[in-house]
Amino acid sequence: MRKIEVCLSPELIHQFELKGKIVVVADIFRATSCMVAGIGSGVASIYPTEKVDECFELGKKGLITAGERGGQKVEGFEIGNSPFEYMQEKYKGAKIAVTTTNGTQAIYKSIGADQIIIGAFINLSAVVNHLKNLDQDIIVHCAGWKGTVNIEDTLFAGAVIDRLKATSETDGDPAVMALELYQAHKDNLVAFGKTSSHAKRLSGFGVEKDLEYCMTQDLFDVVPVFKDGFIEG
Amino acid sequence: MRKIEVCLSPELIHQFELKGKIVVVADIFRATSCMVAGIGSGVASIYPTEKVDECFELGKKGLITAGERGGQKVEGFEIGNSPFEYMQEKYKGAKIAVTTTNGTQAIYKSIGADQIIIGAFINLSAVVNHLKNLDQDIIVHCAGWKGTVNIEDTLFAGAVIDRLKATSETDGDPAVMALELYQAHKDNLVAFGKTSSHAKRLSGFGVEKDLEYCMTQDLFDVVPVFKDGFIEG
Repeated sequence: MRKIEVCLSPELIHQFELKGKIVVVADIFRATSCMVAGIGSGVASIYPTEKVDECFELGKKGLITAGERGGQKVEGFEIGNSPFEYMQEKYKGAKIAVTTTNGTQAIYKSIGADQIIIGAFINLSAVVNHLKNLDQDIIVHCAGWKGTVNIEDTLFAGAVIDRLKATSETDGDPAVMALELYQAHKDNLVAFGKTSSHAKRLSGFGVEKDLEYCMTQDLFDVVPVFKDGFIEG
Repeated sequence: MRKIEVCLSPELIHQFELKGKIVVVADIFRATSCMVAGIGSGVASIYPTEKVDECFELGKKGLITAGERGGQKVEGFEIGNSPFEYMQEKYKGAKIAVTTTNGTQAIYKSIGADQIIIGAFINLSAVVNHLKNLDQDIIVHCAGWKGTVNIEDTLFAGAVIDRLKATSETDGDPAVMALELYQAHKDNLVAFGKTSSHAKRLSGFGVEKDLEYCMTQDLFDVVPVFKDGFIEG
């Protein structure tokens, strides 16, 4: 039976064997939600970069610069880290270069897996259907916040496991814990997600609408894939 | 109000400010349970060592050698990693040198805290009463297994938070997650603890009795403290 593991923080990913597995990267507030919203709205490709400088360099080559540090838009970038910014009509067909505190790191640390896909609540069913069609073990890689374990990414991991439980089994204690957390809160997911430390931190920046959006399920039927340095649908 | 954080793995402890706080180290299966059982049964002091060689050296100086690697007794040591071995009449007043896969590491990585105490379900009330009497923030440091997050240590963290909730508040998402996991399972704690990966691993070594013992609450009214390289009651 297909196995699902959960890595609760990029700082723990070295404990996992990536080879032969599909990794689903989740940074619900807000990097992977932005990526899904962008690709789902017609953005051609997204280039995650670890450093702000690198992002500016890609900007000089004509890419749209996007991203945050500590939850706030980097000065000089065209857009910040809100899914609504990624969904603008003018970015249809565009290439976006992005750097974020947590999501980018989690994507790069997943290199070595057979496939790296971008997960969020807003494409949950698409991710689950994609995984159902592949007969490979899965790791949900939670981006966390500066290496710390967070509620919203763990909830997402639990949601993936819950939706796959008929054809998969959990592997390791974090997967059991994630599933239990999700099952306890699946009827108040938005409200519980908003109690997370990171949600509280972000709500100081007036992004309440983003937080609710990022906890909404199944808005896009896309599965962005990271390969060769960029993400495409 | 007093704050309680939870560190889910020694590999994440650098994310926490230790200074000014009390750290409770928990390695339920079985290092901290052994230490509590030992001190609670009259062992004079316990010397945690990171390496097997160091433990043998202390053995030459007359200390009892104890510990495991990968869940099994180190060859040549007097005792392994069962609380029942620590409770033997002949060890009353003895000094024990111990090395374990996870618990020892968590203890040493807690250095820098104002106080490091040894927690287990078997001294849960004693730990909680000790903490209640101090007006300091708390970190429950889960030893995990080879750096991975586990159910049994997280449950213990949740139990501490649950018992202190009238006079404390959680700080950070892992504390919320630990409390929820405990509250969901407080009525089937022994059974749920035995579903953990590490319990399954250990049960192959025929230590079922140890696992049940380690999930039992309040057998000893002692709070072992680690200071200057050794643990005393």
